[in-house]
Amino acid sequence: MTMKIDAIAFDADDTLWHNEDHFAATEDAFADLMEPWATHDEARAELLAMETQNLELFGYGVKAFTLSMIEAAMMISRGAISAADLGMLIERGKDMLARPAELLPGITDVLDELSRSHRLLMITKGDLHHQERKVKGSGLAHFFEAVEVVSEKDISTYSDVIAKNGVDPAGFVMVGNSVKSDILPVLALGGVGVHIPYAFTWAHEHADSTVHGENEPGSRLWRLDTVKELPTLVRSLQS
Amino acid sequence: MTMKIDAIAFDADDTLWHNEDHFAATEDAFADLMEPWATHDEARAELLAMETQNLELFGYGVKAFTLSMIEAAMMISRGAISAADLGMLIERGKDMLARPAELLPGITDVLDELSRSHRLLMITKGDLHHQERKVKGSGLAHFFEAVEVVSEKDISTYSDVIAKNGVDPAGFVMVGNSVKSDILPVLALGGVGVHIPYAFTWAHEHADSTVHGENEPGSRLWRLDTVKELPTLVRSLQS
Repeated sequence: MTMKIDAIAFDADDTLWHNEDHFAATEDAFADLMEPWATHDEARAELLAMETQNLELFGYGVKAFTLSMIEAAMMISRGAISAADLGMLIERGKDMLARPAELLPGITDVLDELSRSHRLLMITKGDLHHQERKVKGSGLAHFFEAVEVVSEKDISTYSDVIAKNGVDPAGFVMVGNSVKSDILPVLALGGVGVHIPYAFTWAHEHADSTVHGENEPGSRLWRLDTVKELPTLVRSLQS
Repeated sequence: MTMKIDAIAFDADDTLWHNEDHFAATEDAFADLMEPWATHDEARAELLAMETQNLELFGYGVKAFTLSMIEAAMMISRGAISAADLGMLIERGKDMLARPAELLPGITDVLDELSRSHRLLMITKGDLHHQERKVKGSGLAHFFEAVEVVSEKDISTYSDVIAKNGVDPAGFVMVGNSVKSDILPVLALGGVGVHIPYAFTWAHEHADSTVHGENEPGSRLWRLDTVKELPTLVRSLQS
């Protein structure tokens, strides 16, 4: 396929830097804390149910997650949890917020190479303040023409971002770890999706990932094992 | 003064709709809850100290405020507060998030009038998800060419927003209730600031509001009692 790539956009959490493993570690600590009242599996299931229930009101991000942990802990313990233990949950949330962005292997080299020939965008969902902190701390900001923090990654959001940045939808390449948030809406708009799975996927982000026709000449859906393969793919799309 | 107005931008919280009075009511409930351990004044002072301490990590908004209330309650009560009382604080936070935007008097008419002759922007700081929910629920979105949710309102933010929207800084009018966030940075960039005070001001937003030279012909700083006076001011600035 010979396409004219107008812009390459990157998801941030679990695409540029580690994220979900921090949530997973905090969920482990949460399950440990709930041991007097629930098995690990029960605790995780209740937490996910609380997060899902709060999503419409809270949105995504660590502060929303922390509030849901507190609510879930009170529910699971039927109010018996101590203030000290709840304080520990808030501390875990603050640790997650304070933690500097830890880049995935090869990211800096790939962005450095691609930014010389293409304009790059970052499109990340979640908490505005925390995402901006991570962008600033990552040392990657200068590679991107624009950083868009959005509250949801659906067709309408991508359509707005593409229009706002004057990108040709057919020349739009999106790179990310979530089929649901990074790939499917972009395919629907006629762009190219590059799926690079991350070791952990949040239950809320699961989507049917058996999409056929990937990695075939002419396909608009590609799956890579690592971002290090991206420059080669970009060259092949254009030739 | 005859200026060519390129865009009129509005702050949202306490300029388009009520906000700070919801925080004030929740602070009252917080102080009531702390009565076994602290006077109302002490409780409020501890809460403000906690919010200020957390600002860099949490940013602005109701979720940040709710987490700070929980932390302050645990500190003031030295861990003696019950899980049920902490649950009540989370419920107050959720009530604030769920509450529909309650417009200030005259807002719809003024936006309707001004949007016929000028392009309007909304520039609001805080939690992305919550602000977008309020914009959607307010019924005002269609009056605005762009809605910018930012994490801080300083000179650099305004400069970015002005550039992004292709606005001439000398033709930029900003309307808002906070001297610190809505007026001073805009004056610094050569625009016009229209200050419309709200009944309540969060302690964090206090700035020296004795700015001289306001409401005089040729001034770039204006103070109005109500937004209803804005169309007349806009006409006078242009004639």
